[in-house]
Amino acid sequence: MIDVAGLKKIVGEDWVITERDQMQTYLYDETTPDQRLKPAEHVVVVKPGTAQEISQIMKLANRDKTPVYPRGAGTGLVCGAMPTRDGIVVSMERFDKVEEVDTENLMVVAQAGVTLAQLLKAVGDANLLFPPHPGDEGAQVGGMIAANAGGSRAVKYGVVRQYVKGLEVVLPTGEITTMGGKLLKNNTGLDLMHLMIDSEGILGIITKATMRLYPRFAGTATLVVSFEDRQKAINTVPKILQSGVIPMAIEYVDHEVIVFSAENLGMKWPAEKGRAHLLLILAGANEDDVYAQAETMSQVCQANGAIDVLIAERQQEQADILKMRSEIYSAMKPKIAGDSDITVPPASLGKMLDALDEIAKKYNTKIATIAHAGDGNFHPYMLKELVERGVAEDVKKEIYKAAVQLGGVITGEHGVGKIRLKYLELLMDPKQEEIMRGIKKVFDPNGILNPGTAIR
Amino acid sequence: MIDVAGLKKIVGEDWVITERDQMQTYLYDETTPDQRLKPAEHVVVVKPGTAQEISQIMKLANRDKTPVYPRGAGTGLVCGAMPTRDGIVVSMERFDKVEEVDTENLMVVAQAGVTLAQLLKAVGDANLLFPPHPGDEGAQVGGMIAANAGGSRAVKYGVVRQYVKGLEVVLPTGEITTMGGKLLKNNTGLDLMHLMIDSEGILGIITKATMRLYPRFAGTATLVVSFEDRQKAINTVPKILQSGVIPMAIEYVDHEVIVFSAENLGMKWPAEKGRAHLLLILAGANEDDVYAQAETMSQVCQANGAIDVLIAERQQEQADILKMRSEIYSAMKPKIAGDSDITVPPASLGKMLDALDEIAKKYNTKIATIAHAGDGNFHPYMLKELVERGVAEDVKKEIYKAAVQLGGVITGEHGVGKIRLKYLELLMDPKQEEIMRGIKKVFDPNGILNPGTAIR
Repeated sequence: MIDVAGLKKIVGEDWVITERDQMQTYLYDETTPDQRLKPAEHVVVVKPGTAQEISQIMKLANRDKTPVYPRGAGTGLVCGAMPTRDGIVVSMERFDKVEEVDTENLMVVAQAGVTLAQLLKAVGDANLLFPPHPGDEGAQVGGMIAANAGGSRAVKYGVVRQYVKGLEVVLPTGEITTMGGKLLKNNTGLDLMHLMIDSEGILGIITKATMRLYPRFAGTATLVVSFEDRQKAINTVPKILQSGVIPMAIEYVDHEVIVFSAENLGMKWPAEKGRAHLLLILAGANEDDVYAQAETMSQVCQANGAIDVLIAERQQEQADILKMRSEIYSAMKPKIAGDSDITVPPASLGKMLDALDEIAKKYNTKIATIAHAGDGNFHPYMLKELVERGVAEDVKKEIYKAAVQLGGVITGEHGVGKIRLKYLELLMDPKQEEIMRGIKKVFDPNGILNPGTAIR
Repeated sequence: MIDVAGLKKIVGEDWVITERDQMQTYLYDETTPDQRLKPAEHVVVVKPGTAQEISQIMKLANRDKTPVYPRGAGTGLVCGAMPTRDGIVVSMERFDKVEEVDTENLMVVAQAGVTLAQLLKAVGDANLLFPPHPGDEGAQVGGMIAANAGGSRAVKYGVVRQYVKGLEVVLPTGEITTMGGKLLKNNTGLDLMHLMIDSEGILGIITKATMRLYPRFAGTATLVVSFEDRQKAINTVPKILQSGVIPMAIEYVDHEVIVFSAENLGMKWPAEKGRAHLLLILAGANEDDVYAQAETMSQVCQANGAIDVLIAERQQEQADILKMRSEIYSAMKPKIAGDSDITVPPASLGKMLDALDEIAKKYNTKIATIAHAGDGNFHPYMLKELVERGVAEDVKKEIYKAAVQLGGVITGEHGVGKIRLKYLELLMDPKQEEIMRGIKKVFDPNGILNPGTAIR
């Protein structure tokens, strides 16, 4: 039994939802219906307004041994935020303030429920830049950190982890604690802050974050580079990385897939030639710098078999291209059983794509693919028909095995969540898993925070 | 009693030192004599050649509950590698191979005993770059990672943590395990690799690392910018960071201190004007790019009161300037009781320097200072006379307190080691310390690996 009266006393009556039909949006995330789990039957949603309230919720939950599920925007793809046992969903939506954009220290202090869109706006208004862009702009800061979100713009400046410099966290046992600060160097003891990043909500509830910013790039350009076939496109990626210019993003898209996404949005994909494209996002101190980068990129790509290079410099054009890329998942979602999130060493991209072709051939299906090619991170899409034919699991396992064989992992940016636990055996060292369980117990002796997530 | 026969059986007779007079260099690190601890009386030094041998050493040590002290080059400044209890020093010097410079994936695979000089050479020979430069080039890869080394060139590209993508580690209980790989994105469970970075040798012995590389910058320049006083120099730092150009390094040096270091080396410091200097290291895709950056920097500095700007473009000139900067500690070491390693938010540098002035005035002493100004990381030097006067500890505590009051920490890059444990009470949350002790116990149930280091 969940102590609803106790919860109401902590957060106030208005911030507790007990009616099932009013909490539907809190029970799921963006995982495809074919992959997602069933939410638990008895769930209470609470919306605390302060870290103190969360602390009290954690104490109540420990007293009763009630599971607690921290929840950001629910943009995850692995059921990480889904309540799968009877318990309390703690929604962070009221933690929605950007507390400070510090232009002297180049840092932003944001509460955990601030969305990526809000963050980008606040930072942009101060003429600064938060470099990573992990896809869905509805995602919240706390979730992005708990999941160590990646996205397209990680080639040059890395994933969310690299930007996090300070955290406020409510520990599973209820203590409110801070780690780091507006600091670029900090070696004070074991780095619990870095352990918190990518802990998928099992070690604490992030309530606030301090993140590093950069000066805004005065110049940017987006290149769409077309190739006759995929291998030529993929083989060009290491050449780009060796050229001395590091793009912010190097994305690979199948022509068919990106055209489908464009049509779905009522837009038009600008490249007509070729069956495979690389998208390069370039950024520099000024327009000349970006132009020089674009020249170099164009030469490198043409020397490696590109048949067309389009350069978009106008903001709107660039935004449109990025939108067509970003919305591929939305376009594909109704057609697919699921996606995966494998990562291999960047130079093994081609081999991995060959392996996908072989798997597709063996199962007589198509595996559409988009890839953060500069990072070696891919999202192969499995069609719904595989579920109907009862082979979706087999296909997924073969994809994972091929990635692991190439020195890769089964998740580069989406996380393990609740749906990938069963695949951990493909790559996990049992001793490391034992250590992870030990660490979880140190933080959360009763095992109540987001149980059944991230670790077995 | 240490099982010397057992150790000889594992690594071979030639790789065990039991004679005290032959192991002196293994008993200390670079900590100043006034600060350093006394090494234990009964120490055996072993030099394993493989991870398997280290695994056996750890099993032997667990059986006997014998402390084990992993040791790199001993360039640390906090007695982190010093054996302070009777036990076994495991020297990593035979792990000296750069196994691979992978130009396709832009990764280097190096054994833990490879020195920074060796690493830079191997990477440079492949026309690639390992961006950070944590000072002493004798430092070894394993130590740099265990200490999350920082150094000057962290402003643009960050500290060592950001480059580590994979580790091979022998756990305290003897298992050999690998984390990560040639991967730019990896979110598979709790991030034990990031916990290992900056664990100061208490959670495992790093035997091999995979680190990210960058293309070599075709153009670099070093600027020496002179100011009439320190405040003007320091106040210019945020303006530089906001300008859109991010230097690789922004160093602050007192004129007196750098001239002393230059004279100590028989060299000549190029800037004659001013009492305070900023050193800016710029890097770019080509000479034009660097020249444009230097122009911007020069304008920003002059607008903020710089009285002279020298631009060094020749390699030798740049190397000389960096050498005079890098050797300050060597020059100062005989004169000082100790240095500290405080870090504050970058924009609070000026306030911190004011606080140092006040402390110096109160104790009627001089506190010479060098600072990684772009990072807010400083090394104030305390003169020997403070020890003689019996106030060195008081001065140090006041410096630490001032840093903490400004939102800073007592170590930015050197670590806690064994000598800063007693200052942790100034900033540590007891609950976080309890968690750190819990994590240590999960990894090392017998508490034998580098005891008395990093955590209380």
